[in-house]
Amino acid sequence: MAHRIAVIAGDGIGTEVMPEGIRALEATAKRFNIDLEFTTFEFGSCDYYLEHGKMLPDDWFEQLKGFDALFYGAVGWPEKVPDHISLWGSLLQFRRQFDQYINLRPCRLMPGIKSPLAGRKPGDIDFYVVRENTEGEYSSVGGKMYEGTEREIVIQETVMSRTGVDRVLKYAFDLAQTRPRKKLTSATKSNGISITMPYWDERVAEMAKQYPEIAVDKFHIDILTANFVLHPDWFDVVVGSNLFGDILSDLGPACTGTIGIAPSANINPEGKFPSLFEPVHGSAPDIAGKGIANPIGQIWSGAMMLEHLGYKEAGDAMVDAIEAVLSEGDSQVLTRDVGGKGTTESLGKAIAERI
Amino acid sequence: MAHRIAVIAGDGIGTEVMPEGIRALEATAKRFNIDLEFTTFEFGSCDYYLEHGKMLPDDWFEQLKGFDALFYGAVGWPEKVPDHISLWGSLLQFRRQFDQYINLRPCRLMPGIKSPLAGRKPGDIDFYVVRENTEGEYSSVGGKMYEGTEREIVIQETVMSRTGVDRVLKYAFDLAQTRPRKKLTSATKSNGISITMPYWDERVAEMAKQYPEIAVDKFHIDILTANFVLHPDWFDVVVGSNLFGDILSDLGPACTGTIGIAPSANINPEGKFPSLFEPVHGSAPDIAGKGIANPIGQIWSGAMMLEHLGYKEAGDAMVDAIEAVLSEGDSQVLTRDVGGKGTTESLGKAIAERI
Ligand SMILES: CC(C)[C@H](C(=O)O)[C@@H](O)C(=O)O
Ligand SMILES: CC(C)[C@H](C(=O)O)[C@@H](O)C(=O)O
Repeated sequence: MAHRIAVIAGDGIGTEVMPEGIRALEATAKRFNIDLEFTTFEFGSCDYYLEHGKMLPDDWFEQLKGFDALFYGAVGWPEKVPDHISLWGSLLQFRRQFDQYINLRPCRLMPGIKSPLAGRKPGDIDFYVVRENTEGEYSSVGGKMYEGTEREIVIQETVMSRTGVDRVLKYAFDLAQTRPRKKLTSATKSNGISITMPYWDERVAEMAKQYPEIAVDKFHIDILTANFVLHPDWFDVVVGSNLFGDILSDLGPACTGTIGIAPSANINPEGKFPSLFEPVHGSAPDIAGKGIANPIGQIWSGAMMLEHLGYKEAGDAMVDAIEAVLSEGDSQVLTRDVGGKGTTESLGKAIAERI
Repeated sequence: MAHRIAVIAGDGIGTEVMPEGIRALEATAKRFNIDLEFTTFEFGSCDYYLEHGKMLPDDWFEQLKGFDALFYGAVGWPEKVPDHISLWGSLLQFRRQFDQYINLRPCRLMPGIKSPLAGRKPGDIDFYVVRENTEGEYSSVGGKMYEGTEREIVIQETVMSRTGVDRVLKYAFDLAQTRPRKKLTSATKSNGISITMPYWDERVAEMAKQYPEIAVDKFHIDILTANFVLHPDWFDVVVGSNLFGDILSDLGPACTGTIGIAPSANINPEGKFPSLFEPVHGSAPDIAGKGIANPIGQIWSGAMMLEHLGYKEAGDAMVDAIEAVLSEGDSQVLTRDVGGKGTTESLGKAIAERI
């Protein structure tokens, strides 16, 4: 039976790295005899918005809900559509409507990649950020008052529910359970953000009781970002709210050399709705159209998708191929951000061949 | 006429670094003929809380408002008092009641300090974080509902006012104006936090019109933290909301080697109320009582205080003395965090002697 994959490339370099993601997936499917069926959608891009006045057609939910997974590029082009409109109109809708309440992002220093941190080598940095993906600081509640006057105020509410917090914590604890170091770090800011964050801490403490084998610690987000730079080796599984997880899962990959290679999975663990797999990087309008974007984030996201669909071995083979090509360090093949002179296509092809 | 300084050492290493801050200030006052009068207060510590059931006496405002400045150590000891109680009961009260709406934090890679970032040397990192210090994400509005049930939710409101946003932006633009590079970077997250952050962006764009000479850019906070690590040389003046400024002003100093040396000023620019000067680091219960805390953050904060009181030359002399002692790199003098074997006192004395 074919696995049906919905493909949404989006904007900017999203459209450039997507073909390489598919190339690598097709090579893997062939090798491991997996039946993947790709269906491409044009919606979910700023160009679609300019034409239709909305990011998605009204029946997007119906169109997509039957797929086994969504393979997603990158969305946003602020000169065409303000970011909060393009993102709330697409990616954030998928995360919410498909209840993809886990955002999982590995941070791993890969061979051949130079960390910006002094003296760190492959193996030194290897952790996961588990981010709450449906509520918290990314809320749609709030508004503006005294508009246009000196007294103007804007209010936005951070909303956390017990259900929302507990389910992401459970996922993170379960993940820590599978790791050799069995360590979980919680990102908080309960000293300053005095209502939601003490609540987050409370739920962590409560959940920890059910996982006596896990070593739990917590840091306020300010010092935690500092510790990502000073002691990246401290971390194993890091769990944070929507905003804190967002920050940590860009900073973590930056500490491993380039956010161009970092993948992510937006998961609905119950499988009631399709999960969504996308690189961490954005649409990068500044380098779009040049063919120099690094496709590894997209390809690695494809590997996470295969693992999610039950093909762990196939996913691992994709990651191995990425590591092998990076290790070789052929500057004709590698893209600029990882020290080469190659193109999106040269790097994508090299990985696909290796698979 | 004497400048009256209120001294609140607080908790943990606050009580250890404070004497060194005063030692350095007294040496400077002597050399530059400045009349400083220190008055020490016991309140604003967790021990005070344990005795009195509150962090501050009811008349703290009356007691402190006549001082020319507050010289502050560090507060918090979570095992004695939960952080949100100790901090909201002290530091955050001062910031709000004394309308210290600017939190100014220099990030500078000092000689003799090894940056955790590969290949960065003194001169490469030299910027200011200007943080909004009285509103935003650190709000006291919100609450809990369906308490104790499965349906439990907590809500906390981020509140931004035009007055609050504009005045911190104005300060940051004015500061950028005085710097050779005339560059200002705004921290935002308008793609995800869809009400307050687009408003922040709007006000930045509006204010920028009045400063045509300033080069303005903005980054979403996630990629901005990544850029602090990947490209710290890009930044000159970085302005952010209360939370974003908090994060960036721990991360920035971490990129310069140790947050133990970073200073900060909580400023009421109009001089209607006293301003407050404190190290960026916290009370660090884990190393408290050992005499190994680095006093430079406290001493450098003292330098910012002197500059604020009108003695720029004297403040500069303190910073020069810090640089000189760090450059010498005498391991008997330096504290552990900067590669030495010395104590809080040995380092504090060396700096005071140098002054
Ligand atoms: C202690 C805490 C409330 C405080 C803050 O977040 O403002 C501290 O981190 C700081 O940066 O001064
Ligand atoms: C594009 C943006 C809304 C998004 C987010 O903040 O969630 C992105 O930064 C991410 O991390 O997936």
